Amino acid sequence: MYAIPKNEYAERIAKFQANLQAAGLDAALVHGNEADFANVRYLSEYWPTFEAAAVFVPAKGKPVLVIGPESEKYARGRSVIPDICLMLEYRESAEPNYPGIAVAHYPDVVALSGCGPLRKLGIVSYSITPLPVLDALKRDLPGVELIKADHLFLPLRFIKSDNELACMRRAFAISEIAVDAILNELKPGMTEFQVIGIAQREIYQHGGEYEGHALYCFSGPRTNNAICRPTHKTIQANEIIQLNIGARVAGYSSSVGLPLSIGKLPAPQKRLAEFGLQAHFKTIELMQAGKAAAAVVKEYEEWVKAQGFGQYMLYGPCHAIGMMEVEQPWMESTSTFDLAENMTFQVDTFFSADDFGLRWENGVAVQKHGVEKMSSKFMRLIEL
Amino acid sequence: MYAIPKNEYAERIAKFQANLQAAGLDAALVHGNEADFANVRYLSEYWPTFEAAAVFVPAKGKPVLVIGPESEKYARGRSVIPDICLMLEYRESAEPNYPGIAVAHYPDVVALSGCGPLRKLGIVSYSITPLPVLDALKRDLPGVELIKADHLFLPLRFIKSDNELACMRRAFAISEIAVDAILNELKPGMTEFQVIGIAQREIYQHGGEYEGHALYCFSGPRTNNAICRPTHKTIQANEIIQLNIGARVAGYSSSVGLPLSIGKLPAPQKRLAEFGLQAHFKTIELMQAGKAAAAVVKEYEEWVKAQGFGQYMLYGPCHAIGMMEVEQPWMESTSTFDLAENMTFQVDTFFSADDFGLRWENGVAVQKHGVEKMSSKFMRLIEL
Repeated sequence: MYAIPKNEYAERIAKFQANLQAAGLDAALVHGNEADFANVRYLSEYWPTFEAAAVFVPAKGKPVLVIGPESEKYARGRSVIPDICLMLEYRESAEPNYPGIAVAHYPDVVALSGCGPLRKLGIVSYSITPLPVLDALKRDLPGVELIKADHLFLPLRFIKSDNELACMRRAFAISEIAVDAILNELKPGMTEFQVIGIAQREIYQHGGEYEGHALYCFSGPRTNNAICRPTHKTIQANEIIQLNIGARVAGYSSSVGLPLSIGKLPAPQKRLAEFGLQAHFKTIELMQAGKAAAAVVKEYEEWVKAQGFGQYMLYGPCHAIGMMEVEQPWMESTSTFDLAENMTFQVDTFFSADDFGLRWENGVAVQKHGVEKMSSKFMRLIEL
Repeated sequence: MYAIPKNEYAERIAKFQANLQAAGLDAALVHGNEADFANVRYLSEYWPTFEAAAVFVPAKGKPVLVIGPESEKYARGRSVIPDICLMLEYRESAEPNYPGIAVAHYPDVVALSGCGPLRKLGIVSYSITPLPVLDALKRDLPGVELIKADHLFLPLRFIKSDNELACMRRAFAISEIAVDAILNELKPGMTEFQVIGIAQREIYQHGGEYEGHALYCFSGPRTNNAICRPTHKTIQANEIIQLNIGARVAGYSSSVGLPLSIGKLPAPQKRLAEFGLQAHFKTIELMQAGKAAAAVVKEYEEWVKAQGFGQYMLYGPCHAIGMMEVEQPWMESTSTFDLAENMTFQVDTFFSADDFGLRWENGVAVQKHGVEKMSSKFMRLIEL
């Protein structure tokens, strides 16, 4: 079984508490929701659905899981954090009143955690923390200074443990199984949605717990969309088809992306797809522990431009992957970090022309002298 | 094809603008994210993924869709609102910098909308609007009063149009197809996740665009969880299994919920499941246009208590369904609204004992003298 052992959660909490102490914060509130649950699950194994959740972590004391009014039995069965409070601020967006269900307020959470006097509270998952949480903090913890604190938490997730890597390798293996099934069953006339259905079937059949991200199957001109959703469009022979298929295992995401076609690809598509694959290998070749992320980006972009393909490049060649398919840090020309062993990245090679685009995507774990490829089966241009 | 026609979006915008004018607001900002996209999609047909989105609606003028930096081509191909701005506040939670992509700020959005002087701005989707949006509003629109305005928007979604009802009927029909497939394939030893995989395959095969909610298959003691996620637990004969399977069609959700077993259910489970089904029918019997929601709840709860099952009842008995599987309004003892024709509800009959629970769930549309059942095939106790 692929899972994070209980002691690893305790280690994560301890490291985060050390960061809070070093920064002079008294505690932090870490938010998660159904779509963006990673920070909460990283600390608690609790995976919210319908309702939101948070982990309150005092610099000294016990963490407390905060959930919505309907999730108590679920949370008690799942959370590795035994102290749990129900709060209305974490209810569903339909905002039921729940007459008859007793709920807590932040002062109850603070007291349960054994946190001393609370003067400075870090906010983690700032970009998804919603307004009712802020309103309740201001109302119920007046005078407490709120400080954006993602920088004290997210780096804990950058370097993966052996257990995390094992979950990710399995997630990538399932993604490859799902792509294989698509290649075996893909026929002209199938809708993009039906292709997604094949992938979903395989993900759950082979031990996945969910999709690793909203799955991609686009065909024809819409392949030039950097972000998109599949549609009822039917797939045709000799047009470009883009797949990005990702399974999730024990909270860890993956994605395998490739362009392909049924029958021959038209020459301009084939040329850019083949170049994209070369560029994909180029990025992989540039990566190793100790190298500055910005240097990888700069060398990659210069190489692409020197090959005459600069105008097809939208953004840069890698983003981290872990509990989210896209997580911090991105590799951009503005990045200030160095690659380190066991950081995990999606090599995400996207090129778009006016009327088509393509993306090669595979996962790698940074090693001392290069990378471990977590997926590599579909690093080839397929014309079925 | 099931879809909302373009003119219906224009009608929605016009009605919302009338509400804003009547309330003396100059505009509203309506937020949506990947998990909770309904309000944005209701106005624009745009369905965000990875990034978030908003619709800025001036009381007089043109609506503007606001998206993240990577979604421009996707949004231009999908949104029925032609005016679109890219803003960093709507990027992914991994917070890339996107050097080289030009982004807008709220004053640009306001200007593009043709909104006059902006003094009072309504915030819709308040419960999911995140802190970076608030920070940017305060920074870039200083002096503008921010007012929670869900009450001016959400009632537009309460009563469904003929097009909406058609999408929902189809979504329920696909859910029933998916449940049927599960019943045909369910075997002891299958994991809960594998059961979900069967449903996913059928949803996409038959014209669904996504799951209508995170799908439920729980077995044994965890069936007493009101909210839960499936696991790798293998399903056994003669234990209670809970399914809640929902397809999504053109943005509209559905869910069909039933307890069942492989082989005979133990007597206590069978007794509560059979009573639950009676209670499910009781709720349906109590519903019709013109009736106060609180009266339905009161009569239902009194009936359950009179039958001697009050201690198994957690909440109940209905919540609205539409673009979200759970949306406003809930029917609670505190509700202040009357049922009206073409309001759509999930009749959600959940009973939990110490070591098991069960939920009957089907969709209804309120009619003059009763309801239209949008699903009814699985209103029976199944022992396979």
